Amino acid sequence: MSYSPIIFAERNHPRFVDELKELLRIPSISTLPEHRDDCRRAAEFLFAELKRIGMENVRLIETAGHPLVYADWLHASGKPTVLVYGHYDVQPPDPLDEWLSPPFEPTERNGNLYARGAVDDKGQVWLQVKALESLLAATGSLPLNVRVLFEGEEEVGGEGIAAFVASKPPELQADFALVCDTELFAPGLPTLCVGLRGMIYTELEVRGAKTDLHSGMYGGAAPNPFVALAQILAKLKDEEGRILIPGFYGDIIPPSPEELAAWRSLPFDEEHYRIAEVGSRQLVGEPGYSVLERTWARPTLDVHGIPGGFTGAGAKTVIPAKAVAKVSMRLVPGMTPAKSFALYKSYVEKIAAPGVDIDVRLIHQGDPCLIPVDNPYIRAATRALQEVWDRDTVFIRSGGSIPIVGDFARHLGLPSVMMGFGLPDDNLHAPNEKFNLKNFELGIVSTIRFLEEAGG
Amino acid sequence: MSYSPIIFAERNHPRFVDELKELLRIPSISTLPEHRDDCRRAAEFLFAELKRIGMENVRLIETAGHPLVYADWLHASGKPTVLVYGHYDVQPPDPLDEWLSPPFEPTERNGNLYARGAVDDKGQVWLQVKALESLLAATGSLPLNVRVLFEGEEEVGGEGIAAFVASKPPELQADFALVCDTELFAPGLPTLCVGLRGMIYTELEVRGAKTDLHSGMYGGAAPNPFVALAQILAKLKDEEGRILIPGFYGDIIPPSPEELAAWRSLPFDEEHYRIAEVGSRQLVGEPGYSVLERTWARPTLDVHGIPGGFTGAGAKTVIPAKAVAKVSMRLVPGMTPAKSFALYKSYVEKIAAPGVDIDVRLIHQGDPCLIPVDNPYIRAATRALQEVWDRDTVFIRSGGSIPIVGDFARHLGLPSVMMGFGLPDDNLHAPNEKFNLKNFELGIVSTIRFLEEAGG
Repeated sequence: MSYSPIIFAERNHPRFVDELKELLRIPSISTLPEHRDDCRRAAEFLFAELKRIGMENVRLIETAGHPLVYADWLHASGKPTVLVYGHYDVQPPDPLDEWLSPPFEPTERNGNLYARGAVDDKGQVWLQVKALESLLAATGSLPLNVRVLFEGEEEVGGEGIAAFVASKPPELQADFALVCDTELFAPGLPTLCVGLRGMIYTELEVRGAKTDLHSGMYGGAAPNPFVALAQILAKLKDEEGRILIPGFYGDIIPPSPEELAAWRSLPFDEEHYRIAEVGSRQLVGEPGYSVLERTWARPTLDVHGIPGGFTGAGAKTVIPAKAVAKVSMRLVPGMTPAKSFALYKSYVEKIAAPGVDIDVRLIHQGDPCLIPVDNPYIRAATRALQEVWDRDTVFIRSGGSIPIVGDFARHLGLPSVMMGFGLPDDNLHAPNEKFNLKNFELGIVSTIRFLEEAGG
Repeated sequence: MSYSPIIFAERNHPRFVDELKELLRIPSISTLPEHRDDCRRAAEFLFAELKRIGMENVRLIETAGHPLVYADWLHASGKPTVLVYGHYDVQPPDPLDEWLSPPFEPTERNGNLYARGAVDDKGQVWLQVKALESLLAATGSLPLNVRVLFEGEEEVGGEGIAAFVASKPPELQADFALVCDTELFAPGLPTLCVGLRGMIYTELEVRGAKTDLHSGMYGGAAPNPFVALAQILAKLKDEEGRILIPGFYGDIIPPSPEELAAWRSLPFDEEHYRIAEVGSRQLVGEPGYSVLERTWARPTLDVHGIPGGFTGAGAKTVIPAKAVAKVSMRLVPGMTPAKSFALYKSYVEKIAAPGVDIDVRLIHQGDPCLIPVDNPYIRAATRALQEVWDRDTVFIRSGGSIPIVGDFARHLGLPSVMMGFGLPDDNLHAPNEKFNLKNFELGIVSTIRFLEEAGG
């Protein structure tokens, strides 16, 4: 009996792929107002499918933005309850001219399915739905209680789901969450993500003159906010990558020697990473730390853009009245957004050049998070992945932030199992996003086996 | 007889103002392709008026961009020839919501005429045309030979007129140029501008990864071109305003002790300038130099904008593949664009952080220029201004660049008389640009008297 859901999944695989393509054709770009209806269409697509496969209490939950999709199946008396999470919204496809096939016309090439959202996160949402379908179709029931919650605003900050989770609704009572929005460390290597960096995203505004001035007339006497801003930014991080904010590193809890040893045994080729993934002349970062430590377990500071001033083609001789830098910092366990922001703000105010006014604003924040690995759900996931992929499961962290994982822990007390099937070169947020179809298939099988193991 | 042109001008003043308003209603914004026809309409407006007042050989000279307007009157046998220059194009009016009256609906308030182009430069073009009309209408002739050349690309680099001047056409044979695109040092103070800064306008591009990357995944390992750019910019100029490029100050020819003494006697209130003109917390600049020295006789470096990356509202966690800074330097006598750019480029290449690629591009350049004051035309202008304004004429420099003045000197051997009637608070290139109507009136009289004096 226990293998029949997998046989069902294998037999129905071509249909599963066709359905995923249908979902990928909906351009549910959450950040663009003109795609508002497409986001709703994607939600309704999931709604209809959850209903069709036999989930219950299926409904759309309205938010200030795009709707949530909820469903449950709660007939596994005495068994634990999983909250299955994913998101149906996608990033904008720009730059369009770099796509080899249209972003919303899913295309198979070399065993991959290419489309915006293929792996982030529609493909991974779909593999969860198809695992549930296979279990229900083959056995008439599920091996544990299941609640499903899909959102449509992950790419724009996830405010709707955050507010819903913070309200601690009875619909979200569960024992653990299954978050399927991460990746394998390497092809064929079963992976659980057990740590995420937090972040503070800020705007740093520098104002000089009261209005834009002619740089010929006033150059040499009027403060230039772009120059003053550059002088501040240059003092935030040195050329080797050390953050220069006093006290910034003070509260970090470093990874254990065992975790560091495990990272050293991962198949990681720094030169391949530099050439194939980053494509830069050399890598940068804090001396004395490996690339995995620098991206998983050390805070970092990045500048994302500097709006204001003259950005057109050619020349305009203006001393702009103000400049704004979008600056974010990734935080690691031990650090808090509140303290990190306070240290940053007071340092910036201290080092700002004379002649300019400064405004430091916090735009977004998220706590770093470290998943305890000694719980039955992580153990169940470890076993299931090992069995399906026939290799030892590795535990990694991610340098990114998945704020919902922190929200699940803080508001609902749920540990998350971050089990994802993307690959490092899947071009998330970039042209030619793809999902390996073998990983889609094994992702369904892995999810079936995980739910069975978690049900005990 | 010699006063009748002035009486004509006084009697016709209301009509002159009405005509200027008509010219100001044409939105001849040279940088915006959608206003291409408006630029031509402004040129045709000048063409028609020059013809009507009795100038000869009036014609439009086509360029790759907006047309030049040419006219002449060459019947003053034995007299010198003046080349009268101005420009009919204007800056864009943005930000529109800061205008108290619409930029292309000229409005009189408090003795001023408010409109985009009121003083820069349509009002000053029109006062030249009206001086010629007054002379021709009152006396039937002009006191010297006159060639007129108006351009429509001054605000976008003036490539059309530069190419035309460089070709040394017979139409431009003259003894001196009259350039009416500057200002009085203070209200009521007759002023000649005898020095201009030159400039190099550059783009400094920094490239890190081959494509935009997720700052969570790659932050701490991938080079951030905005951070690398800030580190370079912070090393170009220190917080007191000294340019740090080795050798940059090496060739400067300082003003003479007499010129410096004359500047010290000008009515200049640094605190008023800081509050009313610049409006910043404090002024910046090289220690040991006065504001006038810093803006007229010292080079400076400004950053105008930093395109690239994420500049929208809210947060996007991207490590951009590249960042570009628009950086210009103003040059003073003794310096050359070629050497200054070479020093800048090699310094930037030397100080760039590891991990990034650098590209330094020269976008525009212009020589600094110093007008000899011991020629008969400057003497004639000095006398005419003194008589009309009843005060000693002062000689100033401008921190800006008027590239055509250098072109007239280099290609045609012409000294320029830079006689302008704007005021420091006329809001050039800014909202609520204005021209004081008394200055418009006295500008016409001053030009009449100058042409008479220059005719000998």
